[in-house]
Amino acid sequence: LEDAVDAGLSLPVIFKEPTITPTNEQVESMGLSKKLCSPNGYMRSKWNGFTISRDTIRIEGIETGYNKPVFFDRHAVGGEYNGKWGKVGKGLVKTYYFPDDESTNSVEISSHHLKDDNNVVVTYFNPLDNVEDMSHHFFSRCLKANITPYVVTKKTVFGWQEEFWQIMKDVFDKNYKEDFIKKDLLENCGDDLRHLISDAATMSLVSWSNFRGKDSGGFGMATHNYDGDMLSDELSQIYRSPGFITSCMVGKNNNSKNHIKLFEASHGTVTDMWNDHLNGKETSINPIGMVEGLMRALEYSNFLHSGDMNYHVIDNLRNVIYGSIKEGYGTRDLFGKYGLTTEEFIDHVAKRL
Amino acid sequence: LEDAVDAGLSLPVIFKEPTITPTNEQVESMGLSKKLCSPNGYMRSKWNGFTISRDTIRIEGIETGYNKPVFFDRHAVGGEYNGKWGKVGKGLVKTYYFPDDESTNSVEISSHHLKDDNNVVVTYFNPLDNVEDMSHHFFSRCLKANITPYVVTKKTVFGWQEEFWQIMKDVFDKNYKEDFIKKDLLENCGDDLRHLISDAATMSLVSWSNFRGKDSGGFGMATHNYDGDMLSDELSQIYRSPGFITSCMVGKNNNSKNHIKLFEASHGTVTDMWNDHLNGKETSINPIGMVEGLMRALEYSNFLHSGDMNYHVIDNLRNVIYGSIKEGYGTRDLFGKYGLTTEEFIDHVAKRL
Repeated sequence: LEDAVDAGLSLPVIFKEPTITPTNEQVESMGLSKKLCSPNGYMRSKWNGFTISRDTIRIEGIETGYNKPVFFDRHAVGGEYNGKWGKVGKGLVKTYYFPDDESTNSVEISSHHLKDDNNVVVTYFNPLDNVEDMSHHFFSRCLKANITPYVVTKKTVFGWQEEFWQIMKDVFDKNYKEDFIKKDLLENCGDDLRHLISDAATMSLVSWSNFRGKDSGGFGMATHNYDGDMLSDELSQIYRSPGFITSCMVGKNNNSKNHIKLFEASHGTVTDMWNDHLNGKETSINPIGMVEGLMRALEYSNFLHSGDMNYHVIDNLRNVIYGSIKEGYGTRDLFGKYGLTTEEFIDHVAKRL
Repeated sequence: LEDAVDAGLSLPVIFKEPTITPTNEQVESMGLSKKLCSPNGYMRSKWNGFTISRDTIRIEGIETGYNKPVFFDRHAVGGEYNGKWGKVGKGLVKTYYFPDDESTNSVEISSHHLKDDNNVVVTYFNPLDNVEDMSHHFFSRCLKANITPYVVTKKTVFGWQEEFWQIMKDVFDKNYKEDFIKKDLLENCGDDLRHLISDAATMSLVSWSNFRGKDSGGFGMATHNYDGDMLSDELSQIYRSPGFITSCMVGKNNNSKNHIKLFEASHGTVTDMWNDHLNGKETSINPIGMVEGLMRALEYSNFLHSGDMNYHVIDNLRNVIYGSIKEGYGTRDLFGKYGLTTEEFIDHVAKRL
């Protein structure tokens, strides 16, 4: 893994298939010596990942939950993902900050009295240095796609999230506000950047979709790490399926002005289907998210190489896959029980290439 | 507030209207001397609240997002709502547990190295003593309503949430499993209690609704505090509107075997509409959630008084309100632009009472 991550630093385009974080049962059934952590956190940290972008994939003629694009930027670091914890009884819990090392003066950050006999205590942190990079990435791509940006937090109750909003708002006001106003993209927001409470965002994803509205989609959301996990999965299901959402982690390359980009499918390993496959059962799911990840990786590579690559390969692949689906040759998550199995779909595409 | 909370302890039925946690602007515009915290946390703690139940309200003949009931139980305590935090730079953060007081030996719970110049650090705790009460409440009402129970956590990544699941699973296996199997309510779950990852739960709320499925609804979810906040709001929007969801905080009364119940609307103060109203604009939203809260409070009071109360008042009120809506007299969130304003709807109901 470390070699792969080092290679990613010098070659800033990565395509990754889903990885397995084994359950206790899998450790046994696969004969593993121990349970390693998910590689995602390690990659995000080494590649200075600041956002995971998750966007709707549009295939003309295929009905989806939103008529216009929906973009997501999920802060790639921080939140409960770096949480450490302990199980404790009644008593006192205190958190201290040591600016240098333990021997120097410490500052008390917080103190909790616990009354229950049985508690779990969690400490986590949100690093904020790269929120500015995330802001530029988010606002510039929303502007380019002509969609309205929203920043999602629970800052009215979780006071520590105010800072995330404030950084994004500052970047917006200084660099993007005028351009968004010129394009009439802030009309419903009082000509200002709009903040959405996270629980209200779960409702907006529904009410701004074809489920309720007419002029659906056409917005972007920038969120903290865990909220983005929840909300982008909700988005994927309302849109059509997790196979119709991209996932691209964007990181900062200290040796280059270009970003490091890790492309993957937004869904995981689809374990249930793999088990069905192993048991000889037919399975059927569209591979658009994964194929689109690969194609976008090639496109970004082409961009970094000033367009030297033979781009027609990608155009052709996309045309054939999308064309097949448009003509009704697709998997069962899209076309119900008369759809093709995953293998039949792949064979169909291969024949037409 | 303290008087009201004490009264709630002796009279275990409370109906509450939405409360305002003032913004900085409201502190000024309302001439407040200072900004008090939300009373919700205080009430939940004093009344030993263990769950907030949020269920779909059914009006026959009115089309909604689920054909069968959906129940929610959100752990009323714990999570980031009790989080305390600090803003810190590079350095080390450590959390300690003191079983007695600070003078005695402490145990280190966690340690984080921070590399960014700008971070926020958060410590919170989940008290677990009342999860058993919550489990009994949740499983018994799912069983009574013939719906399938799910427990929602992010325990595969947030290891500290394993305990919540384990307590619920133990209560289930010992007390409810057989009864659920007898009723064929665990058919799709391998005859066992099913765990749902929180981000997958955001998808299930969509895929188990009329938006995608046919035999929609018929399930319950028990969740941690913040997940329940997010998911129950998503539910309300998919179902129809926040006006169609109940909200009941259930607490433990140390002097009685009966629970303390606080009934309210699941939505807040609907600030935007209040501002429109102050500005002389017409507003229109259905008050079902709030009226249903009041009616259920009266019903619970009647139950505690062994049915002494005149129950017909409630039946009559419910019949008139639901009847009006069934006949097409309802607010604009239900009937679009030809619906009644809030005031017209209330007048209509008053005339028929």
